[in-house]
Amino acid sequence: MSKIPVGILGATGMVGQNYISLLDGHPWFEVKYVAASARSAGKKYGDVMTGRWHLRKNCPSSVNDIIVEDANDITRAAQSAKQGNLAFVFSALEMEKNEILALESGYAAAGIPVVSNASANRWTDDVPMLIAEVNPDHADIIPAQQKSRGWNKGFIAVKPNCSIQSYMTPFWALIQAGYEIKRAVVSTMQAVSGAGYPGVPSLDIIDNVVPYIGGEEEKSELEPLKIFGKIENGKFNKASSPVISAHCNRVPVINGHTVTVSMEFSDKKPSVEQIKKIWTDFRALPQKLNLPMAPVQPIIVRDEPNRPQPGMDRDIDKGMAVTVGRIRPCNVFDIRFVGLSHNTVRGAAGGGILNAELLKSKGYL
Amino acid sequence: MSKIPVGILGATGMVGQNYISLLDGHPWFEVKYVAASARSAGKKYGDVMTGRWHLRKNCPSSVNDIIVEDANDITRAAQSAKQGNLAFVFSALEMEKNEILALESGYAAAGIPVVSNASANRWTDDVPMLIAEVNPDHADIIPAQQKSRGWNKGFIAVKPNCSIQSYMTPFWALIQAGYEIKRAVVSTMQAVSGAGYPGVPSLDIIDNVVPYIGGEEEKSELEPLKIFGKIENGKFNKASSPVISAHCNRVPVINGHTVTVSMEFSDKKPSVEQIKKIWTDFRALPQKLNLPMAPVQPIIVRDEPNRPQPGMDRDIDKGMAVTVGRIRPCNVFDIRFVGLSHNTVRGAAGGGILNAELLKSKGYL
Amino acid sequence: MSKIPVGILGATGMVGQNYISLLDGHPWFEVKYVAASARSAGKKYGDVMTGRWHLRKNCPSSVNDIIVEDANDITRAAQSAKQGNLAFVFSALEMEKNEILALESGYAAAGIPVVSNASANRWTDDVPMLIAEVNPDHADIIPAQQKSRGWNKGFIAVKPNCSIQSYMTPFWALIQAGYEIKRAVVSTMQAVSGAGYPGVPSLDIIDNVVPYIGGEEEKSELEPLKIFGKIENGKFNKASSPVISAHCNRVPVINGHTVTVSMEFSDKKPSVEQIKKIWTDFRALPQKLNLPMAPVQPIIVRDEPNRPQPGMDRDIDKGMAVTVGRIRPCNVFDIRFVGLSHNTVRGAAGGGILNAELLKSKGYL
Amino acid sequence: MSKIPVGILGATGMVGQNYISLLDGHPWFEVKYVAASARSAGKKYGDVMTGRWHLRKNCPSSVNDIIVEDANDITRAAQSAKQGNLAFVFSALEMEKNEILALESGYAAAGIPVVSNASANRWTDDVPMLIAEVNPDHADIIPAQQKSRGWNKGFIAVKPNCSIQSYMTPFWALIQAGYEIKRAVVSTMQAVSGAGYPGVPSLDIIDNVVPYIGGEEEKSELEPLKIFGKIENGKFNKASSPVISAHCNRVPVINGHTVTVSMEFSDKKPSVEQIKKIWTDFRALPQKLNLPMAPVQPIIVRDEPNRPQPGMDRDIDKGMAVTVGRIRPCNVFDIRFVGLSHNTVRGAAGGGILNAELLKSKGYL
Repeated sequence: MSKIPVGILGATGMVGQNYISLLDGHPWFEVKYVAASARSAGKKYGDVMTGRWHLRKNCPSSVNDIIVEDANDITRAAQSAKQGNLAFVFSALEMEKNEILALESGYAAAGIPVVSNASANRWTDDVPMLIAEVNPDHADIIPAQQKSRGWNKGFIAVKPNCSIQSYMTPFWALIQAGYEIKRAVVSTMQAVSGAGYPGVPSLDIIDNVVPYIGGEEEKSELEPLKIFGKIENGKFNKASSPVISAHCNRVPVINGHTVTVSMEFSDKKPSVEQIKKIWTDFRALPQKLNLPMAPVQPIIVRDEPNRPQPGMDRDIDKGMAVTVGRIRPCNVFDIRFVGLSHNTVRGAAGGGILNAELLKSKGYL
Repeated sequence: MSKIPVGILGATGMVGQNYISLLDGHPWFEVKYVAASARSAGKKYGDVMTGRWHLRKNCPSSVNDIIVEDANDITRAAQSAKQGNLAFVFSALEMEKNEILALESGYAAAGIPVVSNASANRWTDDVPMLIAEVNPDHADIIPAQQKSRGWNKGFIAVKPNCSIQSYMTPFWALIQAGYEIKRAVVSTMQAVSGAGYPGVPSLDIIDNVVPYIGGEEEKSELEPLKIFGKIENGKFNKASSPVISAHCNRVPVINGHTVTVSMEFSDKKPSVEQIKKIWTDFRALPQKLNLPMAPVQPIIVRDEPNRPQPGMDRDIDKGMAVTVGRIRPCNVFDIRFVGLSHNTVRGAAGGGILNAELLKSKGYL
Repeated sequence: MSKIPVGILGATGMVGQNYISLLDGHPWFEVKYVAASARSAGKKYGDVMTGRWHLRKNCPSSVNDIIVEDANDITRAAQSAKQGNLAFVFSALEMEKNEILALESGYAAAGIPVVSNASANRWTDDVPMLIAEVNPDHADIIPAQQKSRGWNKGFIAVKPNCSIQSYMTPFWALIQAGYEIKRAVVSTMQAVSGAGYPGVPSLDIIDNVVPYIGGEEEKSELEPLKIFGKIENGKFNKASSPVISAHCNRVPVINGHTVTVSMEFSDKKPSVEQIKKIWTDFRALPQKLNLPMAPVQPIIVRDEPNRPQPGMDRDIDKGMAVTVGRIRPCNVFDIRFVGLSHNTVRGAAGGGILNAELLKSKGYL
Repeated sequence: MSKIPVGILGATGMVGQNYISLLDGHPWFEVKYVAASARSAGKKYGDVMTGRWHLRKNCPSSVNDIIVEDANDITRAAQSAKQGNLAFVFSALEMEKNEILALESGYAAAGIPVVSNASANRWTDDVPMLIAEVNPDHADIIPAQQKSRGWNKGFIAVKPNCSIQSYMTPFWALIQAGYEIKRAVVSTMQAVSGAGYPGVPSLDIIDNVVPYIGGEEEKSELEPLKIFGKIENGKFNKASSPVISAHCNRVPVINGHTVTVSMEFSDKKPSVEQIKKIWTDFRALPQKLNLPMAPVQPIIVRDEPNRPQPGMDRDIDKGMAVTVGRIRPCNVFDIRFVGLSHNTVRGAAGGGILNAELLKSKGYL
């Protein structure tokens, strides 16, 4: 059976490179279309990337000979789609917000679904912001989105920011088990790969911590409320809890965002043991559908006193599982713990691929 | 005028090395007596330290020829004291708690005051745990301590753990200004020098974070309550607030503990601008007395969005000032900020020296 | 077909852990016997390793329930061997040289071949020091070794130091192509994992370089001469070239030893292009035998100006290939280049496993 | 006595910041004129640098209120010079080579001497490339330079690349003692601060080594020949030795370039002990003149087996001394050793300031 031909918008950037890398050997999808800025267009991807491939894993040879297209040339993409060579695109665009909004809408309008990693459409009313294990039902806004926009086959679906991934699935597992989380204070220790390339200068981070990442705290506090919200009248109605206070810090780590969390429950308060069981047992739609990129066990609970650690736990289960540990009572709130997820896999390209698998399974792709 | 001759117990360990380094050129004190384990005794300090000096600043040559004494040989120290060659000792002992308790009491009983960096006596009822800017009046328990122990000139005074230094002075400045802090969630990013030598293996911390430091969270939560407490009937009555929830993490930084803090006030709540002013204007007894090791301005407020940073701010004012920044409202509590202090200076040997200067000024030394 | 049961001496140390990790899922060998110090004996490996597993990849669950044996108890091992549960052992012993010599001989005398990672027997006259691609014929000293020692089935074979792996195979490929290397100056930048655990203190290596590794330069200069030597009268006759001057340095890198090399040829001098071709085309016995652990292409030539890099190239082909780059004329000698190999895989456990595969193919195991 | 007013061209770049920082409190010179690109001109230096000051030591407050001038506006500088507010400039220009050539000549033609850190004029025939301890007599080409250019008071003097500083003074001390160095193989481990800001991306260097720095090896091999050359007929006649083969590597270190050196002498070969004595005893003109920035002892010999190290030795004597160690026979050549110098102090701004002090003492400023 032949694979589904997919495209990557922004294929030369760091997120694009991660898509290229993670889609290598994917059982369902095959990269057939790569698009970037006009100045790369017309050249082979392998040639364009000489000296620009910055992942620690080498570029798969399978994409070397693909001719790079101009990401602004939607007509060209539509042609490819018509010929059956492009089913949908992953958007890893790195541009001004307005340009991304215009381009993603353009592709969708041309009948090419857009599974996006960009932040531009995260707060668009009718665009689902998906974590496949948490709010897969949000995908069901797509027909309404298509209808209101007058789009046929195309649509836009996005994923949230990388820094919230290490606690969103744990939070959701508890909420689903009936424990409402009222408030949480989170403090992150984020990897430099989250800033792209060239990103964080080494002079700023060797033997140092930078206790600030522009815009990150706002995203960390707001995005969960849309993700935990409900579809009402073709729009998302934001949840009102948990209220989150986020402290976002950059540390000298290549990959893997670590977070400390203190959380307060509303009325019903689970014990440490109950939480461990809920998290260990948690399975969601991606697991039930046995999606290729889905982790077998979405939340891995470690009992050792000093885990999770990015160096030891980020790559577990293809980098798609969230690892938690140090679950213990909190002096100030009810429970505190440490969470970890791989920011460029679970938090970016891997999460985007899993979203596409989910959307495919639900029949939207 | 001749300097006061001081001794260092545990002079070969990392804290001892920091005392040696920071006391070099001190205007009041001069290291005349160094004591370590029996196997180092009888040799010159310079010879003993060949291959064992691990500070990044070289060992001052002035101590090279001092003969190392056996720290267990209190008689020898008493003799030195009698001859006017030893006025008091800094304890940087690294032993079992019981051994430290016995030794520190032994020196004090022999008439040699002990200004200690060790944790053994922190919770001893009549021993003051001093941060010179916060609770200098706690030193006034010393006469009661001496009386109840039957000690003449000797006494024991200690300093608290390094990880709380970056928020204790800020907290105190607010409390003194009339703002009671009810609760706080703190998350630290601590330097490897806090673990001594050899301390944290490089395999554990390069490209990694370890979200656990044994015993550190308990100390961080409890010690503030003694420090903010009051002397009543020759004992310390612990304060009941702030209730603190501490998350302690190790990061790949050589020196400087960074902390994120979310704090809740009781009734009276200061604004961000009020806090900046209180902190910037804060001066305490060490500043009034113009003590040599005292920072001119104990709390430095940075307005840049990305400060403090350990790499840039740890060494300010001899490493003795606390730097704070990112003072802003908190979604969950009232105010959040980032604090930083140099763990081996302000948080260890430098803090100990300042305590000794304070005790001298108060007439106890 | 059932797998060959193998044992690991020193299974709880870092090299032992690497053997455990790399042998997980090996097509020929299965770990059935793990031995360590007496105090670990009698307990399950998984229990013994709680808090002691320091690899960044988790311990495979398959070994958790194996009961740890006392490495000094050769009788117990012989019994296992007799019952068909132990065909040979990998020695990852970390002890005094004399103890290792005694133990490795003991196992061999008991009929259990020893494929060793330890340095103790590297200079034993009749013990081959093998790099599978370089001197596989040295294994053929084994019958003479067995005869002179009066051993039946047992023997000892070792591998050389990790730091020479990145240039030994490149040197050998050139020698085999007829280009004698007269002299070479090499300067290494070695990973901290080479020092085991706890190994290099983080205080010594964050934001630092340590230009010294005890004993490493001597090994780097001498071992190549035995490896390039010839068997004569049941002993190794050392080669007289290349004369090597080694500068060994420790850098803040987790895995992967990088080396800069300037080399002088005797009469016949290859061009840069000839060298690239020789190295790219080089295949040796492990490749011809298609051994499971053998890299497909032992020497990978990179043409980019800034490669190899440990972060990007160490894991190529299971961590077993050597990557070279920057091949260019040398002002002082003839040619210079940069080499890289994974020190704990190619340079330690992986190299040991490949040696065992070679010895199996040659009929010695 | 009032200080000499000096200017800094390129004052907002990293080298410029280092000049600002190191000149703070200088006994002879005072920064009175700072120039940068046109878009910074007219603003206060302190305001321009908000968010752009990247040194780990804070910007001295004394320069905050200086109005930034346009570095292209030589007329403005000439005016300042005329008013006695600008005696000479340090050039820390970061531009295209041609622009720097034009600008530096422009300032000199306008009667303003240029003490440059830029590489543009290093190979200009009549421009001295000075290391104050090595070739102070090269300054004496200045009258010829002025005459041939038709310049009155202005001239251009430059300093060499940072990476050669750790062996040039040691080489020179030996040459001066009568030991000709024929050939040397050097392999550097260079700090990230050498690449300026933003410079090396953290993604490229955490847990990594980059064995390549564009253009650095060529400079390292050629510049010594000019520095060791002689003035003949108003031009520099290059020395013919030592022939150097340089391997330049970037490592995860903030400051301090470390280098391993194997060197071959011509006929007369010094012993290790002779070399130690020559280096320890070496004093040059800056020491004789007691110049403020001159290290008391230009070459510090360490006897410990594991020194020098950048983390421990870079800051010795204001960061101006070169530290050497591991002096030992070389298998391939005669002697090998490890050298270290602070790249942004000795190797850049500090070296430039010392050059200016030398030029002042010689009467050229």
